[in-house]
Amino acid sequence: MNTGVINNNNQARQALVEETLVDNVLRSFADCSDPRLKQIMRGLVRHLHAFVRDVRPTEAEWNQAINFLTEVGHITDDRRQEFILLSDVLGISMQTINVNNTAYKNATEATVFGPFFVDDAPQIELGGDISGGAAGQPCWVTGTVKDTEGKPIQNARIEVWEADEDGFYDVQYDDKRVAGRAHLYSNAQGEYYFWGLTPTPYPIPHDGPVGRLLTATGRSPMRASHLHFMVAAAGYRTLVTHIFVEGDDLLKYDTVFGVKQSLIKDFHQYDKNTATPDNRDLGHETWSKVNFDIVLAPSE
Amino acid sequence: MNTGVINNNNQARQALVEETLVDNVLRSFADCSDPRLKQIMRGLVRHLHAFVRDVRPTEAEWNQAINFLTEVGHITDDRRQEFILLSDVLGISMQTINVNNTAYKNATEATVFGPFFVDDAPQIELGGDISGGAAGQPCWVTGTVKDTEGKPIQNARIEVWEADEDGFYDVQYDDKRVAGRAHLYSNAQGEYYFWGLTPTPYPIPHDGPVGRLLTATGRSPMRASHLHFMVAAAGYRTLVTHIFVEGDDLLKYDTVFGVKQSLIKDFHQYDKNTATPDNRDLGHETWSKVNFDIVLAPSE
Repeated sequence: MNTGVINNNNQARQALVEETLVDNVLRSFADCSDPRLKQIMRGLVRHLHAFVRDVRPTEAEWNQAINFLTEVGHITDDRRQEFILLSDVLGISMQTINVNNTAYKNATEATVFGPFFVDDAPQIELGGDISGGAAGQPCWVTGTVKDTEGKPIQNARIEVWEADEDGFYDVQYDDKRVAGRAHLYSNAQGEYYFWGLTPTPYPIPHDGPVGRLLTATGRSPMRASHLHFMVAAAGYRTLVTHIFVEGDDLLKYDTVFGVKQSLIKDFHQYDKNTATPDNRDLGHETWSKVNFDIVLAPSE
Repeated sequence: MNTGVINNNNQARQALVEETLVDNVLRSFADCSDPRLKQIMRGLVRHLHAFVRDVRPTEAEWNQAINFLTEVGHITDDRRQEFILLSDVLGISMQTINVNNTAYKNATEATVFGPFFVDDAPQIELGGDISGGAAGQPCWVTGTVKDTEGKPIQNARIEVWEADEDGFYDVQYDDKRVAGRAHLYSNAQGEYYFWGLTPTPYPIPHDGPVGRLLTATGRSPMRASHLHFMVAAAGYRTLVTHIFVEGDDLLKYDTVFGVKQSLIKDFHQYDKNTATPDNRDLGHETWSKVNFDIVLAPSE
């Protein structure tokens, strides 16, 4: 007998078995009355089966995957969302942001929303301070909000939020503080400016199964230092983004893949006792200054 | 300005943003010291990102997916494994079986293991009864266990298990009954025979998120009628499979995609008072008879 012929024959039959299964699963959604749901489920089936046929998990590996997902499910509650963390560290959250914020001329790029936004942050005036007592180096933040033709956008609502110098957002403390977050509005020239804090790096929660996955794969749980923005104005696509700190060692390793080259900014450092732009007295602290000019794409 | 050129430019930049992200996520696993884990994670990233780039979920759809997985996690406990059900109804469990039981000459095809196997089912003699009091039509099951060259395999351990006529396995009752399951051994000619029950259809548990997914996509939760086999012998690949009932309306719609043409068997029906093969007195019941010749592939 010719072993080569038998092997080829086995392989062809095996491929047919695998492909027939994919066809059967795709066909099972034929009666789905919601066309978008049908499209999503068929897409999921095609790509998940391609994954299984590609990496060919053993049954023990499949069991490990089931157990991992079970642990992710069991640690998830009202305060902890491990499925979002999992989506984040696989870059799926960022890719979802990408496909929903497609490149448009010179419009500012979007990045991940994150779990720490709060709807009702206090309003501040232009030049106000978002820190609300949060610890950290003061940072003077300035910029403009314009459309892709360079026209200033007045009255854009700018939400900003960030962690304190210990790497925690206000909502991670138990004392109901509101700190390191606010909203303000651009002026007639599209300008905005406020005092915030120079961003510092922090880890995502890594005491659960996602943290163990990061450890097992030799990855860090750290996020690069960043300051969150959400900018909304009538007639424009709402922009959710961050700015990152030029020179931060973590820019290459941001564990949720939020960094984009265009969002890395010079947080210029000033010695203590240097005069501040608004003559605020910082009491001999060092401070920093950054500029972030925002360009909004039109609504679709 | 030429709108076509701008659009092409936007599209090229968009593709670059999406591809750069995939590259960054793949690169994040560069320091993974376990080569197999690295291969699995990179494969997962490639295929999941291809899925996202293909179906382009809205952020609301991404949220729905996170909520769905959260519900799957929360209903899962020691008795209920909704992640396995999800894997089953997407055909992922079956595809995992496929890639681990590759076609080999005329070896019998494998199918899904299912959650209802029990390790310590009682032993019966050849010709014994596995029903243990479970309700259903008696079925005389016969067959042989051979290798791919036609040589009988003596002393193969044959585990068989099935639901009763109400569609429940013994372990689904609260009274600790052992019924509808047993193991037996093939004789010197590789033959086996026993009394079981004619299989009947039943639904997978469908009162949770996976059941709602089936409803939303127009699918049935029913499994085609089947009798489980697991056959093990030294030097051979252990076979996990079922046989299905020729003529069953559900063969096309089996919700876990376990059906393979080669596993559909004629469960021949006999009128009451027809003599049984072993002259067992069935007390005026109807009965059925099926033959299933098993061929084991060699161990790898």
